[in-house]
Amino acid sequence: MSTARYDFASDNTAGACPEALEALIAHNDGFTSGYGTDVVTAKAADAVRALLDADADVRFLASGTAANAVACATLVRPFEAMLAHEHAHICTDETGAPGFFGHGLGLIGLKGASGQIDPAELACALEATDVSYRQSAAALSVTNITEYGTRYSVEAVRRLTGLAKGKGYPVHFDGARLANAVAGGFDVKALKNLGIDILVIGGTKAGAPLSEAVVLFDKSLSRRFDARLKQVGQLPSKGRVISSPWIGLLETGAWTARAAHANAMAQKLAALMPYPIVHPVDANAVFVEMDEDWLKRLHAKGWFVYRFIDGSVRFMCSWATTEAAVEALGEALRA
Amino acid sequence: MSTARYDFASDNTAGACPEALEALIAHNDGFTSGYGTDVVTAKAADAVRALLDADADVRFLASGTAANAVACATLVRPFEAMLAHEHAHICTDETGAPGFFGHGLGLIGLKGASGQIDPAELACALEATDVSYRQSAAALSVTNITEYGTRYSVEAVRRLTGLAKGKGYPVHFDGARLANAVAGGFDVKALKNLGIDILVIGGTKAGAPLSEAVVLFDKSLSRRFDARLKQVGQLPSKGRVISSPWIGLLETGAWTARAAHANAMAQKLAALMPYPIVHPVDANAVFVEMDEDWLKRLHAKGWFVYRFIDGSVRFMCSWATTEAAVEALGEALRA
Amino acid sequence: MSTARYDFASDNTAGACPEALEALIAHNDGFTSGYGTDVVTAKAADAVRALLDADADVRFLASGTAANAVACATLVRPFEAMLAHEHAHICTDETGAPGFFGHGLGLIGLKGASGQIDPAELACALEATDVSYRQSAAALSVTNITEYGTRYSVEAVRRLTGLAKGKGYPVHFDGARLANAVAGGFDVKALKNLGIDILVIGGTKAGAPLSEAVVLFDKSLSRRFDARLKQVGQLPSKGRVISSPWIGLLETGAWTARAAHANAMAQKLAALMPYPIVHPVDANAVFVEMDEDWLKRLHAKGWFVYRFIDGSVRFMCSWATTEAAVEALGEALRA
Amino acid sequence: MSTARYDFASDNTAGACPEALEALIAHNDGFTSGYGTDVVTAKAADAVRALLDADADVRFLASGTAANAVACATLVRPFEAMLAHEHAHICTDETGAPGFFGHGLGLIGLKGASGQIDPAELACALEATDVSYRQSAAALSVTNITEYGTRYSVEAVRRLTGLAKGKGYPVHFDGARLANAVAGGFDVKALKNLGIDILVIGGTKAGAPLSEAVVLFDKSLSRRFDARLKQVGQLPSKGRVISSPWIGLLETGAWTARAAHANAMAQKLAALMPYPIVHPVDANAVFVEMDEDWLKRLHAKGWFVYRFIDGSVRFMCSWATTEAAVEALGEALRA
Repeated sequence: MSTARYDFASDNTAGACPEALEALIAHNDGFTSGYGTDVVTAKAADAVRALLDADADVRFLASGTAANAVACATLVRPFEAMLAHEHAHICTDETGAPGFFGHGLGLIGLKGASGQIDPAELACALEATDVSYRQSAAALSVTNITEYGTRYSVEAVRRLTGLAKGKGYPVHFDGARLANAVAGGFDVKALKNLGIDILVIGGTKAGAPLSEAVVLFDKSLSRRFDARLKQVGQLPSKGRVISSPWIGLLETGAWTARAAHANAMAQKLAALMPYPIVHPVDANAVFVEMDEDWLKRLHAKGWFVYRFIDGSVRFMCSWATTEAAVEALGEALRA
Repeated sequence: MSTARYDFASDNTAGACPEALEALIAHNDGFTSGYGTDVVTAKAADAVRALLDADADVRFLASGTAANAVACATLVRPFEAMLAHEHAHICTDETGAPGFFGHGLGLIGLKGASGQIDPAELACALEATDVSYRQSAAALSVTNITEYGTRYSVEAVRRLTGLAKGKGYPVHFDGARLANAVAGGFDVKALKNLGIDILVIGGTKAGAPLSEAVVLFDKSLSRRFDARLKQVGQLPSKGRVISSPWIGLLETGAWTARAAHANAMAQKLAALMPYPIVHPVDANAVFVEMDEDWLKRLHAKGWFVYRFIDGSVRFMCSWATTEAAVEALGEALRA
Repeated sequence: MSTARYDFASDNTAGACPEALEALIAHNDGFTSGYGTDVVTAKAADAVRALLDADADVRFLASGTAANAVACATLVRPFEAMLAHEHAHICTDETGAPGFFGHGLGLIGLKGASGQIDPAELACALEATDVSYRQSAAALSVTNITEYGTRYSVEAVRRLTGLAKGKGYPVHFDGARLANAVAGGFDVKALKNLGIDILVIGGTKAGAPLSEAVVLFDKSLSRRFDARLKQVGQLPSKGRVISSPWIGLLETGAWTARAAHANAMAQKLAALMPYPIVHPVDANAVFVEMDEDWLKRLHAKGWFVYRFIDGSVRFMCSWATTEAAVEALGEALRA
Repeated sequence: MSTARYDFASDNTAGACPEALEALIAHNDGFTSGYGTDVVTAKAADAVRALLDADADVRFLASGTAANAVACATLVRPFEAMLAHEHAHICTDETGAPGFFGHGLGLIGLKGASGQIDPAELACALEATDVSYRQSAAALSVTNITEYGTRYSVEAVRRLTGLAKGKGYPVHFDGARLANAVAGGFDVKALKNLGIDILVIGGTKAGAPLSEAVVLFDKSLSRRFDARLKQVGQLPSKGRVISSPWIGLLETGAWTARAAHANAMAQKLAALMPYPIVHPVDANAVFVEMDEDWLKRLHAKGWFVYRFIDGSVRFMCSWATTEAAVEALGEALRA
């Protein structure tokens, strides 16, 4: 739509993938009940449960920021705090949404290489004494794929959630890029056994027009959840618009297959990359060390990518990334 | 999708109209920048400005509840209150969203026939003395088409907004069904001169998959508005998904034409209606007096409609309502 | 301190009573730990438990508005609502504090004569169907002495709380004037058996300089309650300042005795009152029918009293009201 | 009141000083109007204005945490952030109160030695680009005396506030220990010219039972400020209880004189201190390097002091600290 190239700026610069769009169109006709009570939404929820091989309550939201923030607000009270990696999306890229939805709830940032929480850091934070003048930890948030494009193993997640559960704290799992994790080998059916209370599964980055699935493994949290969603502007009247794409994504296998393509494109890009790669390329992102002059030069050639919070430059691939684009970028980078 | 008939349950039980859906598909290809900074969104905003013949800032949100609540939170502080009709959507059907987005801001319900604020009631509320133990009025919210399907004239709106402006109070205009008002003769280009600070224009009820336009006539309110939207989960990464339908709706004239059809269907239904009609049929709704037995009988025939807050039963028409459906409903009602 | 007479304007226009002030002074010396962990506060909490003959957690707050609002926020989530008399203090005189502390939580006003909730109204509200677009009832708030100076019997309270408990809903009890109720015959030791989860006992109106006791009968609510109080600005560093007056009030019996005096003064005033009395004089308030001219005339004589939300004019007595003042007021009223 | 010694644990472990208590008692008689509209409160506000030699609106609050949090909420919107020293009280010791009162507003922590903001750090933060996914800086908070007991000069404050004002950002000044700063040479009358919008003056640490003065230099912020205070539980009915102590503190000069004593005690303690002092002793605090064993030994002797956020151990002096206590502590430390 412009000569500027946003192909690698993020995995949300592409539109919807065909399977998602076709499902949206296929379920557009006729009349249904509103606010997520419709049969299309029920079918999409079934598809999510089948993906997870789990009995759980499922809702669809139009925004990943809202999905994460609602989860935080469900698990943590205002005078408590969510534990998360210091560079987790909820800590750095959501304009304080957890605090807004959670009425000032706190975030405690934990350190760890390449976006993965160091278990020792978590253990230490969990040992902190409760005092009235600080927001004490009350829940844990884990993100997989991490912000740095790395993938936790099931065992690594279990180690973290196990520590939280040992203290009786609930767990939020931010799976905005869960499809990329699954495509890379993370067993999606293991999630139900990891002590996760609320799981957010990314649809938008996986090819939906605009949708995230919120999975309530702990069904006691579901009471009046629709009222909660309505109040925060996340219970769309035409619920099928955000649920139907999931039917297309999941029934065709596109949710994983498209993510596998994105991961493969990142591998291809990594292979061509003339700059030092600073985080393991486990999924659809390549982070490199690149000085400001070089970045400006790349921008000048029309390729938009962002310098990240750790100082590295991020290249993202998506379901829509083409081999030709990777090669063209590779040339631009090497020139 | 089911033998149950939701045709008249609401004007959001239909899917998206062809013009909206085609525009969504037409703008789906390629890569764009995210979070509403893309060229598709810019074009859609231009189309809204052209509709209004006004220079104003325009944003697109996925939720009407959020759009109204963000407007309230922008205009009213927590220790103040929004004046609105006692049966306005923000007062009765949004699960307290204004209070959530506005951190406890108050709502002062005003009386008036058929959903229209009685100017004398408004004048009286505006005269109330400021006291520290009450949330004083700080802004006015007007809805057109009203919750009871009636239409304010431009002059009637001006009378209300003029009273508010006389006190220096800003105005929110809930236009969830503005298309129906415009199709019924309300001059959309008059809006810019009515003292409105924030206007919400309904897309969803007009045929979009899921989108409302927020128009900031008072541009001083726009500062950091994108951050405000991001924080509340209303700045979608794939912004074009909710902006592109507007291009289709407005460039083809469907926004008004489809609403005119809905209005005509309501007229047709009113003509066939065997029950007493209790509010003027100015737009796409017919409200009737109908006892509980009759309502249950109608439900038993598969036709879902709702008893409203004033005790009457509401039948809504939409862009998708067919003449055949109106006739079938008419038969069911008369049987 | 001025020729204007505020004696009857409220029961908070007097200062602190001697017993409260002496206790404050008596416990002022030396150094103690802070934030309510001190021995003075522990002793005051013991005195409250002894008053109630109950094992419960007790905290002291500087503000009755905050005490009620914290209770609401503890019992009700933002997308839910507190049931209360439509003229309860939390509904009419706290500037929306429950919504602020409770992030937009709703208030559902119930009708009932002279400030007492009609059990049939409550039963009806409790039967309302949960819907996603409304804030459903989640807790009950009862006030005794009511806003209209009337006193519920223990049985009448039990009837209300029993209805709420039948639905599994918790109960808040606003006892800003509990001392006046107890002085009038309400058995304070019965409170522990009435299904109350959070009780607020008024100290300020009873003669403390500035203090309310919050009693958590449901101790599961106490977890991190000090952090909750600290966050809302209600965990004073010098905790003994607001706890020590309770030692004086309770150990001397002044809490009840001073309230009995206030009640007696109201009886005396009622006997002298030339205007029709519109609510039973069960405690320290006299509400009368009085037109605006007469009220202005009284104001012109220097006697400040307020027209209340039901249109009547309120005269309040307190621990400090003198017989001479009642007589002087009586003369002014009859003149 | 116990053999445990809290003398040096904080400057709020003492009770009220005689001048404050006597004023409270002196103004306790008679009846006044409520909610801060009384003549005692007016007189106290005049005394604060005289102290500052400034025309400004003055309010009295019962809590320093609330005073700071209300200031933040007045100056910063939820999607914006307050700039402050990373160890400022609002960032570390108020249980997230700014986020609660400010509906999720952010805090951006700035570095700087001994609690003083490094101007280069501030300048850098002020240069940050506004982006929609972060809470951008919107105001500055400066604390004097700092959390580490150091004193900014007037010029040093001006340098910081000047940077903020250069961007058009308002300034909050946390003067919980302003008396100690003034006693140490900070010109209190210079405050009015430093670009401060909201000033909080500590009364509690200076000897009041429980009171902070909030000074609105920018009077445009005062509109409906009493309603704001009422909503947050900081507009006590018996306003004189928290205002009258200021009359005593300021008319007698005790506010400064008592702080001068506290400062002198800290000097005396510093002179006796066998541990390395890690921050300049500019006011009433002495911070030392002390390992955990030594700290435990001190605790075992009954002397309670706290390890601070920077790892050092803090000894606070107050208006009530005696020379004998300093000497006794000195002995315990050297033993």
